[in-house]
Amino acid sequence: MRATIERATLLKGLGHVHSVVERRNTIPILSNVLIEADEDGGIRLMATDLDLQINERVEANVADPGATTVSAHTLFDIVRKLPEGSQVELIAAENRMQVNAGRARFTLATLPRDDFPVIAEGELPTRFELPAATLKQIIDKTRFAISTEETRYYLNGIYIHVSDEAQPVLKAAATDGHRLARVTVPRPDGAQGMPGVIIPRKCVGELRKLLDEVDGTVQVSLSDTKVRFDLGSAVLTSKLIDGTFPDYSRVIPTANDKLLKLDPRAFEEGVDRVSTIASERTRAVKMALDRDKITLSVTSPENGTAAEEISGDYAADSFEIGFNARYLLDILNQIEGDSVEVHLADAAAPTLLRENDKAPALYVLMPMRV
Amino acid sequence: MRATIERATLLKGLGHVHSVVERRNTIPILSNVLIEADEDGGIRLMATDLDLQINERVEANVADPGATTVSAHTLFDIVRKLPEGSQVELIAAENRMQVNAGRARFTLATLPRDDFPVIAEGELPTRFELPAATLKQIIDKTRFAISTEETRYYLNGIYIHVSDEAQPVLKAAATDGHRLARVTVPRPDGAQGMPGVIIPRKCVGELRKLLDEVDGTVQVSLSDTKVRFDLGSAVLTSKLIDGTFPDYSRVIPTANDKLLKLDPRAFEEGVDRVSTIASERTRAVKMALDRDKITLSVTSPENGTAAEEISGDYAADSFEIGFNARYLLDILNQIEGDSVEVHLADAAAPTLLRENDKAPALYVLMPMRV
Repeated sequence: MRATIERATLLKGLGHVHSVVERRNTIPILSNVLIEADEDGGIRLMATDLDLQINERVEANVADPGATTVSAHTLFDIVRKLPEGSQVELIAAENRMQVNAGRARFTLATLPRDDFPVIAEGELPTRFELPAATLKQIIDKTRFAISTEETRYYLNGIYIHVSDEAQPVLKAAATDGHRLARVTVPRPDGAQGMPGVIIPRKCVGELRKLLDEVDGTVQVSLSDTKVRFDLGSAVLTSKLIDGTFPDYSRVIPTANDKLLKLDPRAFEEGVDRVSTIASERTRAVKMALDRDKITLSVTSPENGTAAEEISGDYAADSFEIGFNARYLLDILNQIEGDSVEVHLADAAAPTLLRENDKAPALYVLMPMRV
Repeated sequence: MRATIERATLLKGLGHVHSVVERRNTIPILSNVLIEADEDGGIRLMATDLDLQINERVEANVADPGATTVSAHTLFDIVRKLPEGSQVELIAAENRMQVNAGRARFTLATLPRDDFPVIAEGELPTRFELPAATLKQIIDKTRFAISTEETRYYLNGIYIHVSDEAQPVLKAAATDGHRLARVTVPRPDGAQGMPGVIIPRKCVGELRKLLDEVDGTVQVSLSDTKVRFDLGSAVLTSKLIDGTFPDYSRVIPTANDKLLKLDPRAFEEGVDRVSTIASERTRAVKMALDRDKITLSVTSPENGTAAEEISGDYAADSFEIGFNARYLLDILNQIEGDSVEVHLADAAAPTLLRENDKAPALYVLMPMRV
């Protein structure tokens, strides 16, 4: 293999693929990136952790086609430090790959291309397109609620499924048992009849990073075990979480009769301020609701007390309810408009938050005893 | 105590003092900041870790003079989150301090002002002034060489002393046994006869942060056990390290006969690039010196090899020498001009680096066997 590639192009490609590679690997080749130069004047970069695979094609000047694998992090660090604007020559032969640029010469250990594991996609019968902006929205508004508890592996991702309601829709949901986030978008053509799938957190994270550079649409293909996101030059393929996502619709309250409407920024800043003195463990903030007046307060045995009044529209009975401040802030952080609706029942019941009844996203938050 | 103060003013003051406070303290009051409002319309903020003390005066509207102490980190976090432009009211009474701003009310636990430990400065017979820019230069060009080995406590700071050479000078030195950094400046009036003092790393760090906001001169006062830096509104008082700094002048080579001159930026970037593949443990980079040509190289059993040629003026015998890449980069990072002199003797001898013989800073680096 012998190819020449612009440093900026190679750096961008490696930037995408190297973050799929785990820092520590028991299987040595999983630390490597596959580099494949083909006759058509392009280089394919590929990395995998056996569950998630990224495949990116970059422009290059290929003199001799061929393929090899080298340490992804080392190559990324080298290319990052090469002078801007330089041309990088990659030459692979005899278990070594040379990287030459300017007056710098690197010789890196390689592992055989044939040992590089590739995720067999198999049949991916469901295929549809989503605007990149929609996919970003789905991820941003749900990923914070993904569980990090490894024992509840079936909650370690975003659940995506279709549903026939007044309109056919596609829904994305994530929950950790304390809060739930759900986004509903019109069902794209081709998604009808698709299985419900749980997309793992790491795939979600890598996909979100790639989406920052995509403007158009993303091609999604999936079966009940794999999903593939085609973003133009980059293709992300992931195994799905093999588990059953709970029937989350049961926890979305439909009969909460107390409605509070307020400015999400004032609410967010107030919660952030009073929670400053909350103890690290509980982080509970109390909301006392009175007619058009909400008092946020925190009492900490070590630090003291904090209280802040904020105005809002509220006409139902006065009562008090507590929430985990961190969870409340995560949700408010996703509310973009100038109003948020909080639908409450009582101090022990799940509370529903949303911008309004037209908003694609809704959030459910379990209260805390305070 | 009752006082009102602008949020920005209080935040700036607390920003300075809170970083002296350690995150964990076995003595509770050491987590606190002393707040003292006096009749003259000012608030004094004070924090200490028993070795280092900061004392800052900020403008305030004092209704009732008085003093108390509250958690420095908590108060800083609260004030940071208060709305920009708000007026902050501080009211202390009965083991509590209220912090009011806008519609937010905090009540913080306090500890008695009288329990707050103050470092007794005692007599500080040596007094001199240094331009803030000179003090910044002294710190920046030496602090990276301060040892972090706690057993060699006498190396855990910057050693400052005066000396009579062709001109009377003040010298600052730091070393960890592998490298030495020394800055020489004209002796300021008042420094004659001062004892050699070792200023602890933490004091150096806090002083450096404060210097970013000072343009004029800094008043330095010291005895053989304490030092005080008066920076206008802030005063930093520190105990000195009670130990003997080694006679470092012995390790500064005077007879190194091989001179290499090169561009410090090209040298730095080359070392940075080839060291990418160095193993974490050794980080050794080899320099092969030939007539007007230097070849930097690294060999790593795991990763492979790297080499880069850089041009430089060199007319002495060819030989090879190795350095710790990290240490070499730390030094080159401090060289500001467009040329650096490297004075070498042989592969085992201390090497001297400096911009030129007029430069206030010089560096000594021990080679590594490669």
